[in-house]
Amino acid sequence: MTKQELFENIKKKKSFLCVGLDTDINKIPSHLLDEEEDPLYVFNKAIIDATARYCVAYKPNTAFYESYGVKGLVALEKTMEYIRTKYPDQFMILDAKRGDIGNTSGMYAVSAFEHLKASAVTVAPYMGEDSVKPFIKYPKKWVILLALTSNKGSADFQLSEDKTGERLFEKVLRKSQEWATDEQLMYVVGATQGKMFSDIRKIAPDHFLLVPGIGAQGGSLAEVVKYGMNSQCGLLVNSSRAVIYADNTREFAFAAAVEAKKVQAEMAGYLEKFI
Amino acid sequence: MTKQELFENIKKKKSFLCVGLDTDINKIPSHLLDEEEDPLYVFNKAIIDATARYCVAYKPNTAFYESYGVKGLVALEKTMEYIRTKYPDQFMILDAKRGDIGNTSGMYAVSAFEHLKASAVTVAPYMGEDSVKPFIKYPKKWVILLALTSNKGSADFQLSEDKTGERLFEKVLRKSQEWATDEQLMYVVGATQGKMFSDIRKIAPDHFLLVPGIGAQGGSLAEVVKYGMNSQCGLLVNSSRAVIYADNTREFAFAAAVEAKKVQAEMAGYLEKFI
Repeated sequence: MTKQELFENIKKKKSFLCVGLDTDINKIPSHLLDEEEDPLYVFNKAIIDATARYCVAYKPNTAFYESYGVKGLVALEKTMEYIRTKYPDQFMILDAKRGDIGNTSGMYAVSAFEHLKASAVTVAPYMGEDSVKPFIKYPKKWVILLALTSNKGSADFQLSEDKTGERLFEKVLRKSQEWATDEQLMYVVGATQGKMFSDIRKIAPDHFLLVPGIGAQGGSLAEVVKYGMNSQCGLLVNSSRAVIYADNTREFAFAAAVEAKKVQAEMAGYLEKFI
Repeated sequence: MTKQELFENIKKKKSFLCVGLDTDINKIPSHLLDEEEDPLYVFNKAIIDATARYCVAYKPNTAFYESYGVKGLVALEKTMEYIRTKYPDQFMILDAKRGDIGNTSGMYAVSAFEHLKASAVTVAPYMGEDSVKPFIKYPKKWVILLALTSNKGSADFQLSEDKTGERLFEKVLRKSQEWATDEQLMYVVGATQGKMFSDIRKIAPDHFLLVPGIGAQGGSLAEVVKYGMNSQCGLLVNSSRAVIYADNTREFAFAAAVEAKKVQAEMAGYLEKFI
Protein backbone atom coordinates (compact mmCIF):
# COMPACT_ATOMS: atom_id res chain seq x y z
CA MET A 1 0.00 0.00 0.00
CA THR A 2 1.30 3.50 -0.79
CA LYS A 3 1.26 6.41 1.62
CA GLN A 4 -1.38 8.16 -0.46
CA GLU A 5 -3.62 5.07 -0.47
CA LEU A 6 -3.34 4.86 3.29
CA PHE A 7 -4.29 8.52 3.66
CA GLU A 8 -7.27 8.02 1.32
CA ASN A 9 -8.46 5.09 3.45
CA ILE A 10 -8.14 7.22 6.57
CA LYS A 11 -10.27 9.96 5.02
CA LYS A 12 -12.84 7.50 3.69
CA LYS A 13 -13.24 5.67 7.01
CA LYS A 14 -12.77 8.82 9.13
CA SER A 15 -10.43 6.76 11.25
CA PHE A 16 -6.76 6.26 11.89
CA LEU A 17 -7.35 3.40 14.30
CA CYS A 18 -5.22 0.27 14.21
CA VAL A 19 -6.63 -2.69 16.12
CA GLY A 20 -3.93 -4.74 17.81
CA LEU A 21 -4.60 -8.47 17.69
CA ASP A 22 -2.70 -9.44 20.86
CA THR A 23 -4.76 -12.59 21.13
CA ASP A 24 -4.17 -14.36 24.44
CA ILE A 25 -5.85 -17.68 25.19
CA ASN A 26 -6.14 -16.69 28.85
CA LYS A 27 -8.15 -13.59 28.01
CA ILE A 28 -10.52 -14.62 25.23
CA PRO A 29 -14.07 -15.75 26.12
CA SER A 30 -13.98 -19.23 27.63
CA HIS A 31 -16.83 -20.58 25.49
CA LEU A 32 -14.48 -20.35 22.48
CA LEU A 33 -12.03 -22.71 24.16
CA ASP A 34 -14.79 -25.27 24.75
CA GLU A 35 -16.48 -25.03 21.38
CA GLU A 36 -13.84 -24.25 18.78
CA GLU A 37 -10.93 -26.18 17.33
CA ASP A 38 -8.94 -23.03 16.60
CA PRO A 39 -10.22 -20.54 19.20
CA LEU A 40 -7.52 -17.93 18.44
CA TYR A 41 -8.55 -17.70 14.80
CA VAL A 42 -12.28 -17.77 15.54
CA PHE A 43 -11.80 -14.98 18.08
CA ASN A 44 -9.75 -12.90 15.61
CA LYS A 45 -12.25 -13.42 12.79
CA ALA A 46 -15.13 -12.23 14.95
CA ILE A 47 -13.14 -9.21 16.17
CA ILE A 48 -12.13 -8.33 12.61
CA ASP A 49 -15.67 -8.60 11.21
CA ALA A 50 -16.95 -6.45 14.08
CA THR A 51 -14.31 -3.71 13.88
CA ALA A 52 -13.23 -3.50 10.20
CA ARG A 53 -15.52 -0.58 9.41
CA TYR A 54 -14.00 1.49 12.24
CA CYS A 55 -10.30 0.95 11.60
CA VAL A 56 -7.76 1.18 8.78
CA ALA A 57 -5.18 -1.29 10.09
CA TYR A 58 -4.70 -4.51 12.03
CA LYS A 59 -1.62 -5.39 14.00
CA PRO A 60 -1.14 -8.97 15.18
CA ASN A 61 1.80 -9.21 17.59
CA THR A 62 3.84 -12.33 16.81
CA ALA A 63 4.72 -12.98 20.47
CA PHE A 64 1.19 -14.06 21.31
CA TYR A 65 1.01 -16.54 18.44
CA GLU A 66 4.51 -17.91 18.98
CA SER A 67 3.67 -18.67 22.59
CA TYR A 68 1.31 -21.42 21.35
CA GLY A 69 3.91 -22.97 19.08
CA VAL A 70 2.94 -24.32 15.67
CA LYS A 71 -0.80 -24.05 16.43
CA GLY A 72 -0.40 -20.35 17.13
CA LEU A 73 1.46 -19.79 13.88
CA VAL A 74 -1.32 -21.52 11.97
CA ALA A 75 -3.82 -19.16 13.61
CA LEU A 76 -1.65 -16.18 12.66
CA GLU A 77 -1.40 -17.28 9.02
CA LYS A 78 -5.13 -17.84 8.78
CA THR A 79 -5.87 -14.48 10.42
CA MET A 80 -3.66 -12.57 7.99
CA GLU A 81 -5.08 -14.47 5.03
CA TYR A 82 -8.58 -13.61 6.23
CA ILE A 83 -7.86 -9.89 6.52
CA ARG A 84 -6.09 -9.80 3.17
CA THR A 85 -8.87 -11.48 1.23
CA LYS A 86 -11.96 -10.13 2.98
CA TYR A 87 -10.69 -6.61 3.79
CA PRO A 88 -7.98 -5.85 1.23
CA ASP A 89 -7.93 -2.14 2.09
CA GLN A 90 -6.71 -2.86 5.61
CA PHE A 91 -3.05 -2.10 6.30
CA MET A 92 -1.61 -5.26 7.89
CA ILE A 93 1.20 -4.72 10.37
CA LEU A 94 3.17 -7.70 11.58
CA ASP A 95 4.35 -6.50 14.99
CA ALA A 96 7.47 -8.62 15.29
CA LYS A 97 10.23 -6.18 16.29
CA ARG A 98 12.73 -8.19 14.26
CA GLY A 99 16.29 -7.30 13.24
CA ASP A 100 19.49 -9.26 12.54
CA ILE A 101 22.56 -9.09 10.30
CA GLY A 102 21.66 -8.40 6.65
CA ASN A 103 21.63 -11.99 5.40
CA THR A 104 19.34 -13.02 8.26
CA SER A 105 17.06 -9.95 8.26
CA GLY A 106 16.40 -10.92 4.64
CA MET A 107 14.91 -14.17 5.93
CA TYR A 108 12.60 -12.28 8.28
CA ALA A 109 11.53 -10.16 5.32
CA VAL A 110 10.66 -13.32 3.37
CA SER A 111 8.56 -14.49 6.31
CA ALA A 112 6.71 -11.17 6.76
CA PHE A 113 6.20 -10.12 3.16
CA GLU A 114 6.27 -13.25 0.99
CA HIS A 115 4.80 -15.73 3.38
CA LEU A 116 2.43 -13.77 5.62
CA LYS A 117 1.93 -11.00 3.03
CA ALA A 118 2.00 -8.23 5.65
CA SER A 119 1.92 -4.59 4.50
CA ALA A 120 4.49 -3.65 7.14
CA VAL A 121 6.72 -5.13 9.82
CA THR A 122 8.05 -3.54 12.99
CA VAL A 123 11.86 -3.60 13.21
CA ALA A 124 14.29 -2.91 16.09
CA PRO A 125 17.06 -0.46 15.14
CA TYR A 126 19.90 -1.59 17.45
CA MET A 127 21.85 -3.44 14.73
CA GLY A 128 21.79 -0.53 12.27
CA GLU A 129 21.52 -0.13 8.52
CA ASP A 130 22.11 -3.63 7.19
CA SER A 131 19.57 -5.03 9.65
CA VAL A 132 16.87 -2.72 8.27
CA LYS A 133 17.57 -2.52 4.55
CA PRO A 134 16.48 -6.03 3.50
CA PHE A 135 12.92 -5.13 4.49
CA ILE A 136 12.95 -2.08 2.23
CA LYS A 137 13.71 -4.06 -0.91
CA TYR A 138 10.04 -4.93 -1.27
CA PRO A 139 8.17 -2.21 -3.20
CA LYS A 140 5.12 -0.76 -1.41
CA LYS A 141 6.02 -2.65 1.75
CA TRP A 142 6.90 -0.79 4.93
CA VAL A 143 9.38 -0.90 7.77
CA ILE A 144 8.08 0.52 11.04
CA LEU A 145 11.20 1.24 13.06
CA LEU A 146 11.14 1.44 16.85
CA ALA A 147 11.97 5.01 17.82
CA LEU A 148 10.48 5.96 21.20
CA THR A 149 8.44 3.13 22.70
CA SER A 150 5.53 3.30 25.15
CA ASN A 151 7.05 1.29 27.99
CA LYS A 152 8.97 2.36 31.10
CA GLY A 153 12.20 0.78 29.85
CA SER A 154 12.20 3.19 26.88
CA ALA A 155 14.07 5.59 29.17
CA ASP A 156 16.98 3.18 29.69
CA PHE A 157 18.64 3.69 26.30
CA GLN A 158 16.32 5.59 23.94
CA LEU A 159 16.72 8.84 25.89
CA SER A 160 20.54 8.68 26.14
CA GLU A 161 22.02 11.96 24.94
CA ASP A 162 25.21 12.04 22.92
CA LYS A 163 27.83 14.78 23.09
CA THR A 164 25.86 17.04 20.75
CA GLY A 165 22.71 16.67 22.86
CA GLU A 166 21.01 14.34 20.40
CA ARG A 167 19.05 11.55 22.07
CA LEU A 168 19.27 7.99 20.77
CA PHE A 169 15.68 7.94 19.45
CA GLU A 170 16.41 11.18 17.58
CA LYS A 171 19.52 9.64 16.08
CA VAL A 172 17.43 6.65 14.96
CA LEU A 173 14.92 9.01 13.35
CA ARG A 174 17.60 11.03 11.58
CA LYS A 175 19.94 8.25 10.52
CA SER A 176 17.25 5.90 9.21
CA GLN A 177 16.07 8.55 6.75
CA GLU A 178 19.30 7.85 4.84
CA TRP A 179 18.05 4.29 4.26
CA ALA A 180 14.47 4.81 3.03
CA THR A 181 11.92 7.52 2.30
CA ASP A 182 8.66 8.25 4.08
CA GLU A 183 6.98 6.11 1.41
CA GLN A 184 8.38 2.95 3.03
CA LEU A 185 9.40 3.96 6.53
CA MET A 186 7.29 4.71 9.60
CA TYR A 187 8.24 4.95 13.26
CA VAL A 188 6.86 3.52 16.48
CA VAL A 189 6.25 6.32 18.99
CA GLY A 190 4.36 5.48 22.18
CA ALA A 191 1.24 7.50 23.06
CA THR A 192 2.60 7.68 26.60
CA GLN A 193 5.29 10.08 25.32
CA GLY A 194 2.91 13.11 25.00
CA LYS A 195 4.84 16.28 24.16
CA MET A 196 7.78 14.32 22.77
CA PHE A 197 5.75 14.16 19.56
CA SER A 198 6.73 17.78 18.80
CA ASP A 199 10.41 16.84 19.05
CA ILE A 200 9.78 13.90 16.74
CA ARG A 201 7.93 16.03 14.18
CA LYS A 202 10.96 18.35 13.98
CA ILE A 203 13.03 15.46 12.62
CA ALA A 204 10.34 13.44 10.84
CA PRO A 205 7.62 15.88 9.75
CA ASP A 206 6.20 13.76 6.95
CA HIS A 207 6.44 10.20 8.23
CA PHE A 208 3.56 8.13 9.48
CA LEU A 209 3.90 7.22 13.15
CA LEU A 210 2.49 4.01 14.62
CA VAL A 211 1.32 4.93 18.08
CA PRO A 212 0.68 2.21 20.68
CA GLY A 213 -0.19 2.99 24.26
CA ILE A 214 -3.67 4.50 24.27
CA GLY A 215 -6.21 2.47 26.26
CA ALA A 216 -4.64 -0.05 28.64
CA GLN A 217 -1.30 1.75 28.72
CA GLY A 218 -2.85 5.15 29.53
CA GLY A 219 -1.81 7.47 26.66
CA SER A 220 -4.12 10.30 25.54
CA LEU A 221 -5.44 10.45 21.97
CA ALA A 222 -6.02 14.21 22.19
CA GLU A 223 -2.39 14.81 23.11
CA VAL A 224 -1.09 12.52 20.36
CA VAL A 225 -3.17 14.40 17.79
CA LYS A 226 -2.20 17.81 19.12
CA TYR A 227 1.52 17.19 18.89
CA GLY A 228 1.75 14.42 16.29
CA MET A 229 -0.75 14.95 13.46
CA ASN A 230 0.64 16.25 10.16
CA SER A 231 -0.84 17.36 6.84
CA GLN A 232 -1.58 13.77 5.75
CA CYS A 233 -2.77 12.69 9.21
CA GLY A 234 0.56 10.89 9.73
CA LEU A 235 -0.79 8.78 12.58
CA LEU A 236 -1.91 5.21 13.03
CA VAL A 237 -3.06 4.93 16.62
CA ASN A 238 -3.21 1.41 17.98
CA SER A 239 -5.51 0.01 20.60
CA SER A 240 -5.23 -3.66 21.54
CA ARG A 241 -6.54 -4.76 24.92
CA ALA A 242 -9.14 -1.97 25.34
CA VAL A 243 -10.87 -3.03 22.10
CA ILE A 244 -10.43 -6.78 21.82
CA TYR A 245 -11.03 -7.59 25.50
CA ALA A 246 -13.87 -5.10 26.02
CA ASP A 247 -16.04 -8.03 27.11
CA ASN A 248 -15.53 -11.75 27.59
CA THR A 249 -19.05 -13.11 27.16
CA ARG A 250 -20.70 -14.25 23.92
CA GLU A 251 -21.16 -10.54 23.18
CA PHE A 252 -17.39 -9.93 22.96
CA ALA A 253 -17.37 -8.98 19.26
CA PHE A 254 -20.23 -6.53 19.70
CA ALA A 255 -18.44 -4.96 22.68
CA ALA A 256 -15.25 -4.65 20.61
CA ALA A 257 -17.23 -2.89 17.87
CA VAL A 258 -18.67 -0.45 20.42
CA GLU A 259 -15.18 0.33 21.75
CA ALA A 260 -13.68 0.70 18.26
CA LYS A 261 -16.57 2.90 17.19
CA LYS A 262 -16.06 5.13 20.22
CA VAL A 263 -12.40 5.70 19.30
CA GLN A 264 -13.32 6.15 15.63
CA ALA A 265 -15.91 8.80 16.52
CA GLU A 266 -13.29 10.79 18.43
CA MET A 267 -10.89 10.39 15.49
CA ALA A 268 -13.51 11.59 13.00
CA GLY A 269 -13.52 14.92 14.84
CA TYR A 270 -9.77 15.29 14.48
CA LEU A 271 -9.96 14.43 10.77
CA GLU A 272 -12.61 16.99 9.85
CA LYS A 273 -10.08 19.42 8.43
CA PHE A 274 -9.07 16.88 5.76
CA ILE A 275 -12.57 16.08 4.51
CA MET B 1 22.10 -25.05 32.73
CA THR B 2 24.24 -23.23 35.31
CA LYS B 3 27.39 -21.29 34.49
CA GLN B 4 29.50 -23.88 36.30
CA GLU B 5 27.91 -26.74 34.34
CA LEU B 6 28.64 -24.93 31.09
CA PHE B 7 32.28 -24.42 32.10
CA GLU B 8 32.57 -28.12 33.06
CA ASN B 9 31.24 -29.11 29.61
CA ILE B 10 33.76 -26.81 27.97
CA LYS B 11 36.62 -28.43 29.87
CA LYS B 12 35.34 -31.96 29.24
CA LYS B 13 34.91 -31.40 25.51
CA LYS B 14 37.95 -29.12 25.18
CA SER B 15 35.73 -26.86 23.12
CA PHE B 16 33.80 -23.61 23.39
CA LEU B 17 32.33 -23.98 19.92
CA CYS B 18 28.68 -23.19 19.24
CA VAL B 19 27.36 -24.49 15.91
CA GLY B 20 24.86 -22.11 14.32
CA LEU B 21 21.98 -23.89 12.63
CA ASP B 22 21.18 -21.21 10.02
CA THR B 23 19.53 -23.81 7.85
CA ASP B 24 18.69 -22.44 4.41
CA ILE B 25 16.86 -24.56 1.86
CA ASN B 26 18.86 -22.91 -0.94
CA LYS B 27 22.16 -24.00 0.57
CA ILE B 28 21.59 -27.53 1.83
CA PRO B 29 22.50 -30.49 -0.42
CA SER B 30 19.95 -30.85 -3.18
CA HIS B 31 19.49 -34.59 -2.75
CA LEU B 32 17.80 -33.86 0.59
CA LEU B 33 15.16 -31.80 -1.18
CA ASP B 34 14.42 -34.66 -3.56
CA GLU B 35 14.45 -37.48 -1.04
CA GLU B 36 13.17 -36.14 2.25
CA GLU B 37 9.81 -34.94 3.47
CA ASP B 38 11.36 -32.57 6.02
CA PRO B 39 14.76 -31.74 4.52
CA LEU B 40 15.53 -28.97 7.05
CA TYR B 41 15.17 -31.36 9.96
CA VAL B 42 17.03 -34.21 8.27
CA PHE B 43 19.88 -31.83 7.45
CA ASN B 44 20.01 -30.53 11.03
CA LYS B 45 19.90 -34.03 12.51
CA ALA B 46 22.85 -35.14 10.38
CA ILE B 47 24.83 -31.99 11.21
CA ILE B 48 24.12 -32.41 14.92
CA ASP B 49 25.13 -36.09 15.01
CA ALA B 50 28.32 -35.25 13.13
CA THR B 51 29.37 -32.25 15.24
CA ALA B 52 28.04 -32.89 18.78
CA ARG B 53 31.33 -34.23 20.07
CA TYR B 54 33.17 -31.07 18.98
CA CYS B 55 30.84 -28.41 20.33
CA VAL B 56 29.10 -27.42 23.55
CA ALA B 57 26.20 -25.43 22.10
CA TYR B 58 23.80 -25.19 19.15
CA LYS B 59 22.19 -22.01 17.97
CA PRO B 60 19.28 -22.21 15.53
CA ASN B 61 18.42 -18.77 14.19
CA THR B 62 14.63 -18.35 14.06
CA ALA B 63 14.70 -16.21 10.90
CA PHE B 64 15.64 -19.17 8.71
CA TYR B 65 12.82 -21.36 10.04
CA GLU B 66 10.21 -18.59 9.97
CA SER B 67 10.97 -17.96 6.32
CA TYR B 68 9.38 -21.37 5.51
CA GLY B 69 6.23 -20.63 7.51
CA VAL B 70 4.59 -23.34 9.58
CA LYS B 71 6.73 -26.10 8.00
CA GLY B 72 9.87 -24.31 9.13
CA LEU B 73 8.58 -23.97 12.66
CA VAL B 74 7.86 -27.69 12.77
CA ALA B 75 11.46 -28.36 11.68
CA LEU B 76 12.72 -26.00 14.41
CA GLU B 77 10.65 -27.71 17.12
CA LYS B 78 11.82 -31.15 16.02
CA THR B 79 15.45 -30.00 15.88
CA MET B 80 15.38 -28.60 19.40
CA GLU B 81 13.59 -31.67 20.72
CA TYR B 82 16.25 -33.86 19.08
CA ILE B 83 19.14 -31.95 20.66
CA ARG B 84 17.48 -31.88 24.06
CA THR B 85 16.78 -35.60 24.20
CA LYS B 86 19.83 -37.02 22.44
CA TYR B 87 22.47 -34.50 23.62
CA PRO B 88 21.14 -33.08 26.91
CA ASP B 89 24.51 -31.54 27.82
CA GLN B 90 24.33 -29.18 24.82
CA PHE B 91 23.49 -25.55 25.58
CA MET B 92 20.58 -24.63 23.26
CA ILE B 93 20.46 -21.02 22.15
CA LEU B 94 17.38 -19.75 20.36
CA ASP B 95 18.82 -16.90 18.29
CA ALA B 96 15.67 -14.80 17.99
CA LYS B 97 16.75 -11.26 18.98
CA ARG B 98 13.35 -10.67 20.55
CA GLY B 99 12.19 -7.84 22.79
CA ASP B 100 8.88 -6.05 23.42
CA ILE B 101 6.98 -4.37 26.27
CA GLY B 102 6.96 -6.50 29.45
CA ASN B 103 3.60 -8.18 28.95
CA THR B 104 4.58 -9.20 25.42
CA SER B 105 8.21 -10.17 26.11
CA GLY B 106 6.68 -12.60 28.61
CA MET B 107 4.96 -14.33 25.67
CA TYR B 108 8.28 -14.65 23.83
CA ALA B 109 9.73 -16.18 27.00
CA VAL B 110 6.92 -18.76 27.04
CA SER B 111 7.71 -19.61 23.43
CA ALA B 112 11.48 -19.94 23.96
CA PHE B 113 11.59 -21.60 27.36
CA GLU B 114 8.32 -23.48 27.88
CA HIS B 115 7.55 -24.44 24.34
CA LEU B 116 10.92 -24.87 22.61
CA LYS B 117 12.76 -25.54 25.89
CA ALA B 118 15.81 -23.51 24.89
CA SER B 119 18.60 -22.92 27.43
CA ALA B 120 18.96 -19.31 26.30
CA VAL B 121 17.44 -16.72 23.99
CA THR B 122 19.08 -13.72 22.34
CA VAL B 123 17.34 -10.42 23.17
CA ALA B 124 17.61 -6.91 21.69
CA PRO B 125 18.16 -4.21 24.35
CA TYR B 126 16.55 -1.16 22.67
CA MET B 127 13.33 -1.28 24.72
CA GLY B 128 15.12 -1.49 28.09
CA GLU B 129 14.54 -3.21 31.40
CA ASP B 130 10.94 -4.40 31.18
CA SER B 131 11.61 -5.91 27.75
CA VAL B 132 14.41 -8.09 29.18
CA LYS B 133 13.22 -9.04 32.66
CA PRO B 134 10.45 -11.51 31.72
CA PHE B 135 13.13 -13.81 30.28
CA ILE B 136 15.05 -13.82 33.56
CA LYS B 137 12.15 -15.14 35.60
CA TYR B 138 12.99 -18.67 34.48
CA PRO B 139 15.60 -20.25 36.81
CA LYS B 140 18.71 -21.60 35.06
CA LYS B 141 17.58 -20.03 31.77
CA TRP B 142 19.65 -17.34 30.12
CA VAL B 143 19.23 -14.03 28.33
CA ILE B 144 21.93 -13.27 25.78
CA LEU B 145 21.69 -9.54 25.24
CA LEU B 146 22.94 -7.88 22.06
CA ALA B 147 25.85 -5.64 23.00
CA LEU B 148 28.28 -5.14 20.11
CA THR B 149 27.25 -7.07 17.03
CA SER B 150 29.40 -8.42 14.20
CA ASN B 151 27.81 -6.52 11.31
CA LYS B 152 28.71 -3.23 9.66
CA GLY B 153 25.54 -1.55 10.94
CA SER B 154 26.74 -2.07 14.51
CA ALA B 155 28.56 1.26 14.14
CA ASP B 156 25.34 3.18 13.46
CA PHE B 157 24.06 3.27 17.04
CA GLN B 158 26.07 0.88 19.23
CA LEU B 159 29.17 3.07 19.10
CA SER B 160 27.36 6.35 19.86
CA GLU B 161 29.07 8.12 22.75
CA ASP B 162 27.05 9.90 25.39
CA LYS B 163 28.12 13.06 27.19
CA THR B 164 30.34 11.13 29.60
CA GLY B 165 32.09 9.32 26.75
CA GLU B 166 30.27 6.05 27.38
CA ARG B 167 29.31 4.22 24.19
CA LEU B 168 25.85 2.72 23.82
CA PHE B 169 27.08 -0.89 23.93
CA GLU B 170 28.96 -0.07 27.13
CA LYS B 171 25.82 1.42 28.62
CA VAL B 172 23.94 -1.75 27.70
CA LEU B 173 26.63 -3.85 29.40
CA ARG B 174 26.61 -1.72 32.54
CA LYS B 175 22.90 -1.06 32.91
CA SER B 176 21.78 -4.65 32.24
CA GLN B 177 23.87 -5.88 35.17
CA GLU B 178 21.28 -4.21 37.40
CA TRP B 179 18.69 -6.63 36.00
CA ALA B 180 20.40 -10.02 36.27
CA THR B 181 23.64 -11.66 37.37
CA ASP B 182 26.25 -13.40 35.25
CA GLU B 183 24.45 -16.65 36.14
CA GLN B 184 21.62 -15.75 33.77
CA LEU B 185 22.97 -13.05 31.51
CA MET B 186 25.43 -13.25 28.63
CA TYR B 187 26.22 -10.79 25.85
CA VAL B 188 26.56 -10.99 22.09
CA VAL B 189 29.89 -9.55 20.98
CA GLY B 190 30.94 -10.00 17.35
CA ALA B 191 34.31 -11.63 16.61
CA THR B 192 34.84 -8.90 14.04
CA GLN B 193 35.26 -6.43 16.93
CA GLY B 194 38.84 -7.60 17.84
CA LYS B 195 40.40 -5.39 20.48
CA MET B 196 37.01 -4.10 21.64
CA PHE B 197 36.91 -7.27 23.75
CA SER B 198 39.30 -5.63 26.24
CA ASP B 199 36.88 -2.72 26.67
CA ILE B 200 34.05 -5.17 27.19
CA ARG B 201 35.97 -7.18 29.78
CA LYS B 202 36.49 -4.00 31.81
CA ILE B 203 32.72 -3.75 32.30
CA ALA B 204 31.74 -7.42 32.19
CA PRO B 205 34.75 -9.41 33.40
CA ASP B 206 32.84 -12.52 34.50
CA HIS B 207 30.08 -12.86 31.92
CA PHE B 208 30.00 -15.38 29.15
CA LEU B 209 30.08 -13.79 25.70
CA LEU B 210 28.44 -15.33 22.67
CA VAL B 211 30.72 -14.53 19.76
CA PRO B 212 29.43 -14.78 16.19
CA GLY B 213 31.50 -13.74 13.22
CA ILE B 214 34.36 -16.20 12.88
CA GLY B 215 34.35 -18.09 9.59
CA ALA B 216 32.18 -16.53 6.90
CA GLN B 217 32.17 -13.09 8.54
CA GLY B 218 35.98 -12.99 8.88
CA GLY B 219 36.66 -12.66 12.64
CA SER B 220 39.81 -14.20 14.18
CA LEU B 221 39.54 -16.81 16.93
CA ALA B 222 43.05 -16.04 18.21
CA GLU B 223 42.16 -12.39 18.71
CA VAL B 224 38.85 -13.20 20.43
CA VAL B 225 40.68 -15.49 22.87
CA LYS B 226 43.51 -13.04 23.48
CA TYR B 227 41.21 -10.17 24.44
CA GLY B 228 38.04 -11.97 25.55
CA MET B 229 38.83 -15.16 27.50
CA ASN B 230 38.37 -15.02 31.27
CA SER B 231 39.06 -17.37 34.19
CA GLN B 232 36.08 -19.60 33.34
CA CYS B 233 36.66 -19.42 29.59
CA GLY B 234 33.75 -16.96 29.30
CA LEU B 235 33.39 -17.50 25.56
CA LEU B 236 31.01 -19.37 23.31
CA VAL B 237 32.31 -18.87 19.79
CA ASN B 238 29.78 -19.50 17.06
CA SER B 239 30.36 -20.74 13.56
CA SER B 240 27.42 -21.24 11.25
CA ARG B 241 28.02 -21.22 7.52
CA ALA B 242 31.69 -22.36 7.62
CA VAL B 243 30.67 -25.56 9.44
CA ILE B 244 27.23 -26.48 8.18
CA TYR B 245 27.84 -25.64 4.52
CA ALA B 246 31.39 -27.01 4.35
CA ASP B 247 30.20 -29.30 1.54
CA ASN B 248 26.96 -29.82 -0.34
CA THR B 249 27.29 -33.40 -1.54
CA ARG B 250 26.20 -36.56 0.27
CA GLU B 251 29.34 -36.11 2.39
CA PHE B 252 28.05 -32.83 3.90
CA ALA B 253 27.82 -34.14 7.47
CA PHE B 254 31.32 -35.59 7.36
CA ALA B 255 32.67 -32.31 6.00
CA ALA B 256 30.89 -30.40 8.79
CA ALA B 257 32.51 -32.72 11.34
CA VAL B 258 35.95 -32.06 9.82
CA GLU B 259 35.39 -28.30 10.00
CA ALA B 260 34.04 -28.42 13.57
CA LYS B 261 36.93 -30.66 14.64
CA LYS B 262 39.42 -28.20 13.16
CA VAL B 263 37.98 -25.33 15.20
CA GLN B 264 37.75 -27.57 18.29
CA ALA B 265 41.43 -28.54 17.96
CA GLU B 266 42.44 -24.88 17.93
CA MET B 267 40.19 -24.25 20.93
CA ALA B 268 41.72 -27.18 22.85
CA GLY B 269 45.05 -25.35 22.72
CA TYR B 270 43.55 -22.20 24.23
CA LEU B 271 41.87 -24.25 26.99
CA GLU B 272 44.98 -26.11 28.14
CA LYS B 273 45.49 -23.82 31.12
CA PHE B 274 42.14 -24.92 32.58
CA ILE B 275 42.68 -28.67 32.31
